[in-house]
Amino acid sequence: MPEFRQNFATKEWVIIATERARRPDTFRHSQRERKNPPPFDPQCPFCPGNEDKTPAAVFQINDDGGWALRAVPNKYAALAEDLGTQRTHEGLFLRAGGYGIAEVIIETPAHDQNPATMGRESIRNVVLAYRNRYTDISLHEKVELITVFRNHGSRAGTSLEHPHSQVIATPITPPHVRDQIYQARISYDTFGSCIYCDMLAEEIRQQERIIMENDNFVAYCPFASRSPFEARIIPKLHRGSFGNINDEEVNAFSHILQEVLKKIYTGLGDPDYNFIIRSAPVQDSNVKHYHWYTVIVPRLTTPAGFEMGTGIYINVSYPEQCARFLRELST
Amino acid sequence: MPEFRQNFATKEWVIIATERARRPDTFRHSQRERKNPPPFDPQCPFCPGNEDKTPAAVFQINDDGGWALRAVPNKYAALAEDLGTQRTHEGLFLRAGGYGIAEVIIETPAHDQNPATMGRESIRNVVLAYRNRYTDISLHEKVELITVFRNHGSRAGTSLEHPHSQVIATPITPPHVRDQIYQARISYDTFGSCIYCDMLAEEIRQQERIIMENDNFVAYCPFASRSPFEARIIPKLHRGSFGNINDEEVNAFSHILQEVLKKIYTGLGDPDYNFIIRSAPVQDSNVKHYHWYTVIVPRLTTPAGFEMGTGIYINVSYPEQCARFLRELST
Repeated sequence: MPEFRQNFATKEWVIIATERARRPDTFRHSQRERKNPPPFDPQCPFCPGNEDKTPAAVFQINDDGGWALRAVPNKYAALAEDLGTQRTHEGLFLRAGGYGIAEVIIETPAHDQNPATMGRESIRNVVLAYRNRYTDISLHEKVELITVFRNHGSRAGTSLEHPHSQVIATPITPPHVRDQIYQARISYDTFGSCIYCDMLAEEIRQQERIIMENDNFVAYCPFASRSPFEARIIPKLHRGSFGNINDEEVNAFSHILQEVLKKIYTGLGDPDYNFIIRSAPVQDSNVKHYHWYTVIVPRLTTPAGFEMGTGIYINVSYPEQCARFLRELST
Repeated sequence: MPEFRQNFATKEWVIIATERARRPDTFRHSQRERKNPPPFDPQCPFCPGNEDKTPAAVFQINDDGGWALRAVPNKYAALAEDLGTQRTHEGLFLRAGGYGIAEVIIETPAHDQNPATMGRESIRNVVLAYRNRYTDISLHEKVELITVFRNHGSRAGTSLEHPHSQVIATPITPPHVRDQIYQARISYDTFGSCIYCDMLAEEIRQQERIIMENDNFVAYCPFASRSPFEARIIPKLHRGSFGNINDEEVNAFSHILQEVLKKIYTGLGDPDYNFIIRSAPVQDSNVKHYHWYTVIVPRLTTPAGFEMGTGIYINVSYPEQCARFLRELST
């Protein structure tokens, strides 16, 4: 029987469409375009030896053999650091200067790795780089919001095979983000608690959508998942901003992130995916009503006209079944 | 130079990313999966002779040779008409009954046609069917919002080749829709005018993003287009709801809709696309602050982690160039 479910935090609705519902194992991805990339590609701008094809590193981690991770300005950035943020009208319409900071984190020298397959040290390097870049970029006066994300595979919007993440800082907090914070603030003003802490407590109480947990984080499939195998990783203690992640949390986060991605990689046959770290705007990093988390979205289905028109996603799987499938999978 | 542009109606921002900007003619789509479908496919549930593979028609237009258009309940509907709308809590989380109406409009018996290639009479039939189904469905007590949309091609989320549109009625007006109406109402309360009428007047004054117009409608690429060749068709006179479209407007709308789709079909090589008719919720059909319109989104680029995280779309084309390209194209 189909049902609507409401996203507890944003108040958006989804439809769990049981007439079309598919068992989790039917989502196994048939084939990536290029399933087995080589460990080194001489044409790849991110492979070792091609450092001159990218701007100079703004952050780097070295190991015995050379660099282990490089963060570089995005050569094809959608925004530019030397622009302003001033608003100008064109008739009734509003423009703002294209100021922003866009960086690429080259996660490892190995062309054929990804977060599900790289070593424990490499995934920890990635999270350390996220923190370093987040912290550095947050010091820029004009930055309002910093988004850390990863696009894996062409269905997830990337054309570059070499393992990389991105950071984009904008001088604007957009409505999509502000509306979530607004809902969280209403809840805080009403109940005196963080809505994400409340949601997490409820997920832990119900248990059935939990994928795994460790001392600092819980991974689960949300009650109102928009698509099959949507997964979230959230700190157990109240934390407004990713920028304040401490050393212990870096270790715990990199571990649970890798474990969940391994489960998706193994269980679903290396599907394309996006993950995004949603963090409070820089000004709001210590607020009591917002809570950072990571959302992982395997790109297994295609949003169509109904989703675009209403914002209501039709999910053809049960989050409870997806969570159980991932929970019971050994990696 | 990159810039932010604000959607006048919703207040969402987009980035026009000029470093990555591409000329309109580079978006030409290489190839559909199956470029030349046959005029008749015996396996297709929507082809003539297979009427028993769909539920019975709820609306039908006949011509000399048999049916010219059929509207049928969606056999694989995400929602069901025999369910309720009652809310129930599961702990803190909220569910609602999966009530809804989902129908498919089989636009023509010809398997190989689409709105860019079908005859004038056929596209008019399609719009007549939209109106008939909208009007009928709006009489159901529990219906709040009716969304008419079309998914063309697999990148747009459809697997069925036979030309068809869909109508889905929900018992909920979701935040994605409500937020737009809220912004429109604020503008109405402030300026005493419909924000869409204001926007249209500004587009007509500036001219550079107009694709074409007729007596009743204007087609244009919005100032803050989220993606290349996003196009909108809007009635010139204030109209809150598609459901009130009159006979003259049916003719004018079907004509301009077909002309714009022809331009996209010819100019971009039959790309996959979605179009959605955004109409006021049923209760609000006569409000002065909302205005129905159609948005056409060719699926030429892939939203990735940044778009999912922020709602800010990076558009690699200038709407002014896209509009000129479509305007100057003869069909």
